[in-house]
Amino acid sequence: MTICFIGIGLIGGSLAISLKENGFATRTIGVDSSSDNCDKAIRRRLVDETMELNAAIAASEVIVLATPVDVMLKLLPQILDQVGDHQTVVDVGSTKELLLNLVDDHPNRSRFVAAHPMAGTEFSGPEAAVPELFSHKTCVIVDGELSAPDALETARRMFQSCEMRLSRLDRKNHDLHCAYVSHISHIASFALALTVLEKEHDEQRIFELASSGFGSTVRLAKSSADMWVPIFRQNRDHVLDVLDEHIEQLSRFRTQLIKRDFDGFYERIERANQIKKILN
Amino acid sequence: MTICFIGIGLIGGSLAISLKENGFATRTIGVDSSSDNCDKAIRRRLVDETMELNAAIAASEVIVLATPVDVMLKLLPQILDQVGDHQTVVDVGSTKELLLNLVDDHPNRSRFVAAHPMAGTEFSGPEAAVPELFSHKTCVIVDGELSAPDALETARRMFQSCEMRLSRLDRKNHDLHCAYVSHISHIASFALALTVLEKEHDEQRIFELASSGFGSTVRLAKSSADMWVPIFRQNRDHVLDVLDEHIEQLSRFRTQLIKRDFDGFYERIERANQIKKILN
Repeated sequence: MTICFIGIGLIGGSLAISLKENGFATRTIGVDSSSDNCDKAIRRRLVDETMELNAAIAASEVIVLATPVDVMLKLLPQILDQVGDHQTVVDVGSTKELLLNLVDDHPNRSRFVAAHPMAGTEFSGPEAAVPELFSHKTCVIVDGELSAPDALETARRMFQSCEMRLSRLDRKNHDLHCAYVSHISHIASFALALTVLEKEHDEQRIFELASSGFGSTVRLAKSSADMWVPIFRQNRDHVLDVLDEHIEQLSRFRTQLIKRDFDGFYERIERANQIKKILN
Repeated sequence: MTICFIGIGLIGGSLAISLKENGFATRTIGVDSSSDNCDKAIRRRLVDETMELNAAIAASEVIVLATPVDVMLKLLPQILDQVGDHQTVVDVGSTKELLLNLVDDHPNRSRFVAAHPMAGTEFSGPEAAVPELFSHKTCVIVDGELSAPDALETARRMFQSCEMRLSRLDRKNHDLHCAYVSHISHIASFALALTVLEKEHDEQRIFELASSGFGSTVRLAKSSADMWVPIFRQNRDHVLDVLDEHIEQLSRFRTQLIKRDFDGFYERIERANQIKKILN
């Protein structure tokens, strides 16, 4: 099967390597607006070849859209304009509601499958692509009933070939739950990095004292603004809702410290510990 | 050299294994107020034997104090009462100002070395002890000039035998910098766990959608209340200061979302990204 990857960064590039390695793709084509990214993708053998967008679409049975989510809004209708019944278009973005609303009435809507592989790292670009990124992670298929059964089946088999578990959600619930468990983690981590950079002017000191705990909590603060600002823009209302709750939780810790209510503090840490049973 | 470890949890237990393995200790003695912890420490071979506190002090050339920091306030003066010029007492706690103020005038003060190995995990107890926990991490010696040169040298050689880098700080700066780079990470992580548990009532959903990014940001939320509440209590003022800054940083993201100021949001993410050059 020939598959093209529009956007050959962390996600597109990793998917391209995985699908070629596991044999699901026999030929992989990369498309990227940055010629530098195209060069890197070829040098790192992420894809077999690179092409212009329209040529790649015409040559592929599966078209994977893996750009930042703002670019998807521009490209998805154009891509759907060009595909036929033998082709499947799959996006791998982190927000769905705007994108799906945009193509609800497109005549080729049924060739499109909205998917969100819940996998990533704090790095970006072709140099960040790694095999095995998706193994044993969840891929959420969003509003799958709007896709043609054969397109849905192709997408499902593609993600399953990377050892992903499949899950289903509608667009609203997808964006809401992602605000809870993914988008807020990024904002918390960006804010923590800014806090420490603001308070701690002696960089050598941070470096020396930063234990692995700090490193893990601010890991996501290395994430790319190009990728994340469009996500926050598209999922603004849900993110605001969860951010309010997060500020409220921190403010309660603050009040407990001010009042020296360490029994209350203890209870809330024990409640936070319950995240263990979910994550382990 | 015979070394006793008062508190055989994550830090005491890991140090005991490391020092026995690398030959710095020829005999290791565990002391713990919990007989269950003593049993586990023996079964897991963290120490050669366990003893009552006073017998262990009398039998040891080095006494390592590795309890929660509130217990240290009670034990350190008692231990110093009993030691002679051939013995060295080393604590490994995360806060220093209160502890050091407490023994400033103790006649045996010079036998004591205040140390903080910047290493840990989110787990606790003897079952969390692992070798290699300290390799290539920093150990801060606090107010080292108040220790006798031979005691200081013993402590330095002990931590260096575990491949730790040594650094020095005074008590005030130690507690301040630790609030910045360690204690605030824990509060941020506890608060994030509470946010998600509050907002996301469907635990199965969290489990499915939680990508590795979320897992890394809330990792510290698994940390023990018994260990951390005494730290926050002792370092309350510095922690409050950094917590105020953190809430302020989050509130700025909130204002930017409300105003749809995504250019400003972008700039602040890029600034947060600078944490890269410190951590990498």
